[in-house]
Amino acid sequence: MLDDVRVVAFDIFGTVVDWHTGITSQVGEVFARLRIDLDPAAFADAWRDRYLPAMARVNNAEREWVYLDTLHRESLDALLSEHRVADAVSESDRAHLVRAWHRLPAWPDSAELLTRLRSRYLVVALSNGGFALLVNLVKHAGLTFDAIASAELAGRYKPDPAPYQTTARLLDVAPHEVLMVAAHSWDLDGARAAGLRTAFLERPAEKGPDREADRAADAVCDLAATSASDLAARLGCGN
Amino acid sequence: MLDDVRVVAFDIFGTVVDWHTGITSQVGEVFARLRIDLDPAAFADAWRDRYLPAMARVNNAEREWVYLDTLHRESLDALLSEHRVADAVSESDRAHLVRAWHRLPAWPDSAELLTRLRSRYLVVALSNGGFALLVNLVKHAGLTFDAIASAELAGRYKPDPAPYQTTARLLDVAPHEVLMVAAHSWDLDGARAAGLRTAFLERPAEKGPDREADRAADAVCDLAATSASDLAARLGCGN
Repeated sequence: MLDDVRVVAFDIFGTVVDWHTGITSQVGEVFARLRIDLDPAAFADAWRDRYLPAMARVNNAEREWVYLDTLHRESLDALLSEHRVADAVSESDRAHLVRAWHRLPAWPDSAELLTRLRSRYLVVALSNGGFALLVNLVKHAGLTFDAIASAELAGRYKPDPAPYQTTARLLDVAPHEVLMVAAHSWDLDGARAAGLRTAFLERPAEKGPDREADRAADAVCDLAATSASDLAARLGCGN
Repeated sequence: MLDDVRVVAFDIFGTVVDWHTGITSQVGEVFARLRIDLDPAAFADAWRDRYLPAMARVNNAEREWVYLDTLHRESLDALLSEHRVADAVSESDRAHLVRAWHRLPAWPDSAELLTRLRSRYLVVALSNGGFALLVNLVKHAGLTFDAIASAELAGRYKPDPAPYQTTARLLDVAPHEVLMVAAHSWDLDGARAAGLRTAFLERPAEKGPDREADRAADAVCDLAATSASDLAARLGCGN
């Protein structure tokens, strides 16, 4: 069924890198230094929760295209105000926190998964992160893709069809020759609507220890993998 | 002088891969199979000679943006007709020959050069080849870049300023933080006019054994390197 797949496109935040651990630890460092008494993990969750609604306003044409860093900064500013700690966090600390999304650890099995898949497919990053963010994030995390794609190249955010279709067009393949891999159902729903094939990759710790991640059993997709090695094996790149 | 360089952008055809050897051998295979009595190396030279004039017509707005594969196909068709062998070369052979530009060998020192530079800089491909062409070419040649850029992302060909400036913008750096590396003076002239820093990398065999390549001694640039190891050393990435 997936015989004609030539490109494997990976979502990044949560699917390839562990945003929850990375943001919690970097927020925790800043809060400790500034003696701010807030739970960093809960703050990371609340920050991430503003991600989809912020992008939806761009896709709904309520505002012009704006870089993900700017959306992160706006939601950070709002959260700090709501927690009544706005005065405690300087401009440079805020800029540092926004850049935390450029420095996130890979899941321990991500590098090997990409290496295996690259032996058979073109493997690209396709994220809502900006092009520069992704290039820096991927390099910092020690990962290698054949190419970096980004919603920025389409001027629209996933799950709008544009980023998926722009990536296929840039790679000179038909949408159905691209397999989108993500740990989130909303991303696969967008990919399917754009004509791509879809693979769910379960990342149980994606939202941290206190919240439940999306599950493979619930995903509507062409291929539901419970782990990186399961995904590699089912794409013909097993041991 | 080059202390603020953060990104090293490489031209590809001739600078990182050996187009003359690759095209000559693939043209030679097709001509031998079709019993066409033309010198493959001279044909490769003549084909490449049409590259800059064809792109200039796009940059001069004499025609809309058109993919490099299309320019290669048009100049191939014209050359075959001029040599009175148009009837001998089928549609599928022509398509195969255009794809020869997607399959070219790296210079023997290119992979190590990129690895060394990637330890200190963001290293990207910036070529007039289309995005898909470059992704496939780089992978086929066994090379690793931090990102693939392409004139296609700007809708203009080098030496127009747009591809250089679009690459800097996508990487979120100032033009003077990008060092353009090329074996051709025309490319560095374009980069300089766009505000980039410039490094000439001498590739003496770039135009094959019968024609003289551009020389480092003649190049106007910030850094003139006579070899890959010379370039790496002078960028602080020596042994």
